[in-house]
Amino acid sequence: MPTSGKTPVLLDLTIDNITPNTNRINAQCEDRRLKYLMERLVTHLHDFARETRLSTEEWMAALNFLVGCGQISSDVRHEFILLSDILGLSLLVDSINHPKPPASTEGSVLGPFHTHDAPTLDIGSSMSSDPEGEPLLCICTVKDTAGKPVAGVKIDIWETDSSGHYDVQHSDRQEPSERCVMISDSEGRFWFKGIRPVSYPIPHDGPVGKLLERLNRHCWRPAHLHFMFAKEGWDNLITALYMRGDPYETSDAVFGVKKSLVVDLDKVDAATAKEYEIKEGSWLLKHDFVLVTKEETEQLRDKNAVDALKKLGLQLKLVDHLPVPDLD
Amino acid sequence: MPTSGKTPVLLDLTIDNITPNTNRINAQCEDRRLKYLMERLVTHLHDFARETRLSTEEWMAALNFLVGCGQISSDVRHEFILLSDILGLSLLVDSINHPKPPASTEGSVLGPFHTHDAPTLDIGSSMSSDPEGEPLLCICTVKDTAGKPVAGVKIDIWETDSSGHYDVQHSDRQEPSERCVMISDSEGRFWFKGIRPVSYPIPHDGPVGKLLERLNRHCWRPAHLHFMFAKEGWDNLITALYMRGDPYETSDAVFGVKKSLVVDLDKVDAATAKEYEIKEGSWLLKHDFVLVTKEETEQLRDKNAVDALKKLGLQLKLVDHLPVPDLD
Repeated sequence: MPTSGKTPVLLDLTIDNITPNTNRINAQCEDRRLKYLMERLVTHLHDFARETRLSTEEWMAALNFLVGCGQISSDVRHEFILLSDILGLSLLVDSINHPKPPASTEGSVLGPFHTHDAPTLDIGSSMSSDPEGEPLLCICTVKDTAGKPVAGVKIDIWETDSSGHYDVQHSDRQEPSERCVMISDSEGRFWFKGIRPVSYPIPHDGPVGKLLERLNRHCWRPAHLHFMFAKEGWDNLITALYMRGDPYETSDAVFGVKKSLVVDLDKVDAATAKEYEIKEGSWLLKHDFVLVTKEETEQLRDKNAVDALKKLGLQLKLVDHLPVPDLD
Repeated sequence: MPTSGKTPVLLDLTIDNITPNTNRINAQCEDRRLKYLMERLVTHLHDFARETRLSTEEWMAALNFLVGCGQISSDVRHEFILLSDILGLSLLVDSINHPKPPASTEGSVLGPFHTHDAPTLDIGSSMSSDPEGEPLLCICTVKDTAGKPVAGVKIDIWETDSSGHYDVQHSDRQEPSERCVMISDSEGRFWFKGIRPVSYPIPHDGPVGKLLERLNRHCWRPAHLHFMFAKEGWDNLITALYMRGDPYETSDAVFGVKKSLVVDLDKVDAATAKEYEIKEGSWLLKHDFVLVTKEETEQLRDKNAVDALKKLGLQLKLVDHLPVPDLD
């Protein structure tokens, strides 16, 4: 394809003029959102190289690190999600996209271990097949911010086995385990049997693990249970509940812990044991989740975006709820 | 490994406090250069997400793009170098690391097709096995900035075949072709037979090609010959010579062209044909390369770094020629 008349002349590019010229040629893009994303990406990437006077060896090491992340990734492992997690980017993107009004349940990081093959189980079922795990009964509700039950919510729940591994981390995985989908009942309730979560290291046999080591950081996450709530008309809630007192409670390798998500475990008493068909003395977790409507979240997200961009001094407007330069 | 007493408390991280907290935990790193690189990387990455209000879908698309770049890479393909090339980062990093004093030969991008298996050929040899290529005689010298010949320089030379592909892009590649290593003689001379370079598209069947397409950019490079000069005590010179009049001369997809590197081809006359044992009327390229000593380059690079960082208002000092925060 020959160059069009509009193409800027690219010649004699230097440390000082490479950025505007790269942005000028990328500005041929007709998708204004992608154009804005690229303009910001190129500017930050180049500023990074200029501020660090990045050496050729460091540049090559970084590119090889990225190849390594891609090559260790697979259907059941996403090293770039892990990288985003340990750099705080995942927490940031989640916070931007799912602002929570007061009294609603806060979000937490998705992590790389959610799958789409978890079985839908009846309320009250057990989702664990690990005989070594300490039995845990979870009794939960889903409500709106006014305290009204939300029925028919699809809830993804997943946790590690007692060895601290998700099912997909076992190479001999036959079927999903320690994960399920439940649907909240007409009173917004759901309960299930799992095992008491344990703290575990994120996968550290790859490039991200080596990076954490070089940074003198540990690779542990505090014990937690993952939840994802989805229902038409409601903002998708990705969150987790963290067990109070875990040694990594305040140093989560992926920055996911929030005070409002740290919970205390209790013990199942005789009456509860009988009602829920579980052994007396098992661990008990009770929690009430609060969802926000899609509309309320969208309004809050737009408002936050406008306020934040104004504070940053950027002349942008929202199109389809995402900022692009305001050229009018 | 339990958290040490020094570990910062990570709880309730938000859009506004995630960056200092990520930097605080990375500051446990004992390598002060890596610590500085990470501090700048995390800051730019987070600023990018905040300024664009990056959506969850865009974040996931970007992470999947990166996985794709890693997975198409191989021993003979480095999609991340290509990505760095088309984003202008390669040109920038080369410019930072190899500043050129006036009268020396300017650098250009390395590209992803240099290999380490090129045969060392005697001066005057042919490095092409492509019968379709138009024969080209290159007569070159290597001198210092005072005009004194530099003998014993190892020169890597590589170009595409007449179809616009490097040997490594052919899956049935048996041995190196259109590439060689030569050593400059006592008078700083080297000459070789190749073929007239042709313009060619960079590999565009992968993620980087798809990105260029979405940006409405073409993927062509103007016709050129690659050169890399190496000798102990001299700054490594990675450069290329571009054929004047190429349709992509001012729109190189990887920003490599400099006016001083654009050359005119001539025709071999009868006397030259006899002397160099090539057919009269073949293409002729004559060029004098000028190398800079390692010491002079290092001093210039340090001076440029100090000046640039001062202009950026950054309080840094150079340690092993690379900036780190100056905490004294």
